[in-house]
Amino acid sequence: MRALGLANVRQERFPLQVWERGREDAMVLSPAPQRIAVTALGWSPATPVGGIEAEVALVDSLEALKAAPANAYKGKIVLVTQATPRTHDGSGYGATGPIRRFGALEAKKRGAVAFLLRSLGTHHHRFAHAGSQDRATITQGIPAAAVSPPDVELLQRLAKRGPLRMTLTLTPKPVRDGFSQNVIGEITGSEKPEEIVLVGAHIDSWDLGTGAIDDGAGTAIVLGAAKLIKALPSPPKRTIRFVLFGAEEQGITGGRSYAEKHKADNHLVVTEADFGQGPVYGLNTRFADPEHPTAQALMRVLAPLGVVRGSNAADGGPDVSPMVEAGVPAIDLAMEGTDYFDLHHTADDTFDKIERGRINQSVAAYVAALWTFLSWAAISV
Amino acid sequence: MRALGLANVRQERFPLQVWERGREDAMVLSPAPQRIAVTALGWSPATPVGGIEAEVALVDSLEALKAAPANAYKGKIVLVTQATPRTHDGSGYGATGPIRRFGALEAKKRGAVAFLLRSLGTHHHRFAHAGSQDRATITQGIPAAAVSPPDVELLQRLAKRGPLRMTLTLTPKPVRDGFSQNVIGEITGSEKPEEIVLVGAHIDSWDLGTGAIDDGAGTAIVLGAAKLIKALPSPPKRTIRFVLFGAEEQGITGGRSYAEKHKADNHLVVTEADFGQGPVYGLNTRFADPEHPTAQALMRVLAPLGVVRGSNAADGGPDVSPMVEAGVPAIDLAMEGTDYFDLHHTADDTFDKIERGRINQSVAAYVAALWTFLSWAAISV
Ligand SMILES: [Zn+2]
Ligand SMILES: [Zn+2]
Ligand SMILES: [Zn+2]
Ligand SMILES: [Zn+2]
Repeated sequence: MRALGLANVRQERFPLQVWERGREDAMVLSPAPQRIAVTALGWSPATPVGGIEAEVALVDSLEALKAAPANAYKGKIVLVTQATPRTHDGSGYGATGPIRRFGALEAKKRGAVAFLLRSLGTHHHRFAHAGSQDRATITQGIPAAAVSPPDVELLQRLAKRGPLRMTLTLTPKPVRDGFSQNVIGEITGSEKPEEIVLVGAHIDSWDLGTGAIDDGAGTAIVLGAAKLIKALPSPPKRTIRFVLFGAEEQGITGGRSYAEKHKADNHLVVTEADFGQGPVYGLNTRFADPEHPTAQALMRVLAPLGVVRGSNAADGGPDVSPMVEAGVPAIDLAMEGTDYFDLHHTADDTFDKIERGRINQSVAAYVAALWTFLSWAAISV
Repeated sequence: MRALGLANVRQERFPLQVWERGREDAMVLSPAPQRIAVTALGWSPATPVGGIEAEVALVDSLEALKAAPANAYKGKIVLVTQATPRTHDGSGYGATGPIRRFGALEAKKRGAVAFLLRSLGTHHHRFAHAGSQDRATITQGIPAAAVSPPDVELLQRLAKRGPLRMTLTLTPKPVRDGFSQNVIGEITGSEKPEEIVLVGAHIDSWDLGTGAIDDGAGTAIVLGAAKLIKALPSPPKRTIRFVLFGAEEQGITGGRSYAEKHKADNHLVVTEADFGQGPVYGLNTRFADPEHPTAQALMRVLAPLGVVRGSNAADGGPDVSPMVEAGVPAIDLAMEGTDYFDLHHTADDTFDKIERGRINQSVAAYVAALWTFLSWAAISV
């Protein structure tokens, strides 16, 4: 940010709880021996020394798990086998996300000794999909892991041949206290510096991959927009604040910290880039008046980039959601994500997956939309 | 095979040397810490306890490695970065295969303490590609491993920022004696039972995946052909022998054993299915007379399946190559393999990659070709 010439560049530190992955090892014992690819879910406790050996109960869905009586899975490992549908807008992941967040808690209530789910990814590779669970699992969880999609299908085939028994070993360290930070920089407005247009991305990522698409791509888009706006011949009328959030992946820890610290700031509108590399195909708003002239102005600059008008139900993005819930207007520049969950939160999220043309279109869309807010004479969306 | 009603079903045991993978762990120390995905090559010795820490020398090709003087890589880890081209016929893998087989021996001659290569795969996933080395590495090897394609590109980018240092830990067990077996069954000829048409596949596979495409697919094609030929209203005139070879992956150990044990048998023609699931697109022959009427008869039944005439330089397949080298005629039913090296020898070689339509066409082509040999009046190709 300093290299880009941004103003007020700073880190804002916040406390968090640290969960650190250990060894992860899963082996089917019967009806046929087979090693399977798993990865521990965030906040999972370790298995006992030597691992867990138990029968595996296959369950179709979180709903079916919740419908089972107490002790239905006593002493067993529960595996929820539901697949995540491939969609362009993340709605598939939205639908299956609760399996990961709440599955271990629901399985424990019914006597299970460990919880597994089909990885919340849309690929068909032998990668397991990391991700966080509900914070209640920090104290009330059971060992929990995601299984790669091909391995879940293998388990489903094996289960037809006889009772499934397996061992599961997970050795994450006990949760401990730590800290992280948000990284912030600005271009100060020339006429109304106190009115802030905020655009964010997050700089943490899951440990299995290198975080290229989640959220290196978003970070590149935001910094690309910063570079272009900084290079314009005249400065914006309002202030634009670039925020690279920390600890999004563990449950929007950086976003909550920012919202609390900056609740008195005058945020005119907020948005985040956290859905891969684009291209941007849709504009969602969350305006008091969805027909506000600003929405029309945004579409005048976005339509030539191939962007269509979406809903007025924008969430802004995960890290700005605490501000949006508090009533701050937001936009989403909705990005094409049909392939996003092929890579997201796996070891395969690496830089070679980045396509320059997609990033470039996204940067153009962010600059066009942000500049509309930065330069438009009268905005009170 | 017994369930299919084949005759003379038997196992033929042979000795081999067993190499067994252990833990594999690689970490870049500088210029930036990063865990990378590696897998030990067959016959690799273990690293010293605690692993190897050394500077990494990037080398473009095996030719460049061979051109370097003695001690050029003294104390270093050599990484050959050449990529395997994607081709439909395996010629890309054919071209880069010597890097894996001979790289460690060549690196050792120049003082290297370990050898790495870019995985011989055409995918862009974070999987490392297993495979065997030249047998001389059993006694003369150094620790050797394949690096996933995205990680090699990461290392190439990091190397531009400063000297690359990394740690490598491999813990395969010492090579020991063991045994495996070929599995054989027949449909006995009604007129000339002593004339044998041999079709093979191999039932061993690399340990990282489940061997679905290499060579479960070939095994399925061969057994599918057995089922259809067995179901024909009249038996074949000649004997068809189905051989499921063991230990192909460690260097055609089962194929060499079979050739030695059966060198007195009258093999009319041999072939193998070991290039994935098809479809079959080409007929290669290795006949004394490539214009022999049998070649024309083969094309009459294969052309309607979309098969074109190829060369007269068939190799038959890896497990039958010792027989072909001894002068036995062979055919190749060349299978479309553009995607074969996306999966081959990786953890991602799993059953979900199998496409029924591709297997079905391949079975049809094998049955059509084999039946031509089994029923044709006069064959002496
Ligand atoms: Zn994200
Ligand atoms: Zn994420
Ligand atoms: Zn093979
Ligand atoms: Zn193979």
